[in-house]
Amino acid sequence: MTVAIYLPAESKTEDWCRMMGDLMPDWTFHSMRNVPDPEAVTYCVVWRPQTGDMKAFPNLKAIVSIGAGIDHVLDDEELPDVPIIRTVGTDLTQRMKEYVALHVLRHHRAMPALQASQARGEWKPIVVPPAPQRRVGVMGLGNLGAEAARLLSVIGFDVVGWSRSPKEIEGVRTFSGSAGFGEFLDGTEILVNLLPLTEATRGILNADTFNRLKRGAAVINAARGPHMVDEDLLEALASGQIAAATLDVFHVEPLPSDHPFWSHPQITVTPHVASLIDAPTGSRIIARNLRTFEETGTVADLADARRGY
Amino acid sequence: MTVAIYLPAESKTEDWCRMMGDLMPDWTFHSMRNVPDPEAVTYCVVWRPQTGDMKAFPNLKAIVSIGAGIDHVLDDEELPDVPIIRTVGTDLTQRMKEYVALHVLRHHRAMPALQASQARGEWKPIVVPPAPQRRVGVMGLGNLGAEAARLLSVIGFDVVGWSRSPKEIEGVRTFSGSAGFGEFLDGTEILVNLLPLTEATRGILNADTFNRLKRGAAVINAARGPHMVDEDLLEALASGQIAAATLDVFHVEPLPSDHPFWSHPQITVTPHVASLIDAPTGSRIIARNLRTFEETGTVADLADARRGY
Repeated sequence: MTVAIYLPAESKTEDWCRMMGDLMPDWTFHSMRNVPDPEAVTYCVVWRPQTGDMKAFPNLKAIVSIGAGIDHVLDDEELPDVPIIRTVGTDLTQRMKEYVALHVLRHHRAMPALQASQARGEWKPIVVPPAPQRRVGVMGLGNLGAEAARLLSVIGFDVVGWSRSPKEIEGVRTFSGSAGFGEFLDGTEILVNLLPLTEATRGILNADTFNRLKRGAAVINAARGPHMVDEDLLEALASGQIAAATLDVFHVEPLPSDHPFWSHPQITVTPHVASLIDAPTGSRIIARNLRTFEETGTVADLADARRGY
Repeated sequence: MTVAIYLPAESKTEDWCRMMGDLMPDWTFHSMRNVPDPEAVTYCVVWRPQTGDMKAFPNLKAIVSIGAGIDHVLDDEELPDVPIIRTVGTDLTQRMKEYVALHVLRHHRAMPALQASQARGEWKPIVVPPAPQRRVGVMGLGNLGAEAARLLSVIGFDVVGWSRSPKEIEGVRTFSGSAGFGEFLDGTEILVNLLPLTEATRGILNADTFNRLKRGAAVINAARGPHMVDEDLLEALASGQIAAATLDVFHVEPLPSDHPFWSHPQITVTPHVASLIDAPTGSRIIARNLRTFEETGTVADLADARRGY
């Protein structure tokens, strides 16, 4: 089998070709920028591919997204109509649940205010209720969201979850669909977004959503930048409806240097580090998925292009 | 029964007298500053009592510490020789495990460096290993330490624990006594101190301890200020042996405004907020312990004054 790999950085693409070749010596891996025989290519492994690149391969069987999301693949407006395989690993979920736990605890325990006190040299204790008296809402209950919600519940938070279709998670009260969205938001003090980016979820972090939360809530976006209506967040922060936000993803990344989020005192900016699949782990998962798909015609982590994730 | 209550703030002392009176209407509660009949007092309930105050009560049966530690009681150089009852509640352990999880994750995920990048308007991702590749060491495996170690293990960290006497905790490799201390420190990247303050543990966070940790380790002190040798920490930070510290407790509290910790770029100062027993929760626990002690002559949370905790 012949595989074409694409990542925005060619040096990383070459790293991936070498790693995949070591794991699957009977397969051939080329950088998509440099494929000797396009007709031989049966699989693509991509992160943020460029529109039109993959339609050059007439015998494509499937596309592998280097990541849990497939929105970056669907951005290819001339995408070939073949199955898309997501890459989900214990590493990815582990890193995401760490990030979510850290930033939920950070807002819960008023760390931004405590750090501001330290900067002023001011000893000013802030007593917060224990976690069982703090409601945290997790939007998106796929692999990442479900694991994050479960950990928050183990830490002791009062956790609610929301997803498109009904889900059951131990220790978490779950809501689903547009009918359940309002009730999910009511009383939520810390909102965590881990939704896939689809046409239905684009702009879901907007004024209407913020206004349903408990006044003074915190918002954490670790999914995709276009989930957020930036202007609505700035207004909700100005009005006090939202007290603080931690943002890992943005409409444009890197976040442009003149963007107001950078210096906003109530916004914590992290540079898209919430989770990632590192190459050694990711390449092993992808090698296993490619072999399984080649042998059986399917894999557990198949995405649904129409649904968007 | 008649009980004398002492907290450094008289207004809080009066709050406690009222709350305890509501819970135990058949008992009598006085502020220790204003006891009509010292011979009638059979119990004291205290936080940071003053030397000599309690020897005025000749019929004392026990002293209740408002807190898990008893070092503040033992500081009374004329302390009557009666049993000391510790106050441990789910609230206290819940708050402490939140604090420990937050600050371990904060160092693990390089948040101080990411926040410094944000302050400079710099998009500079930092990739850290997932938690299973990070060793965290918890010193002190009493109620608080054991719960904190357990949660860190559930989050995914490689957790080691150390205590005076051998303890077993699921998911945690434990060491004990001075013989096990070096092995416990070897390879530890984030060190959490939750030890009781005794003559044996005073100054245990010193240069020798820091030098056994992995180079670039982080230290979190959420126990007592005198566990730390301040000068040794400053030297270890300057040399790079320790990369960062989070300190909730200090030799003198509030931390004096001219103390170098306040403005040290590698030190996070929190104003003794890691954990606390709030009055409504604490008073219920103490009421239960007082009744049990009065009826049976003992309670589960009896401290050992000679041992120091």
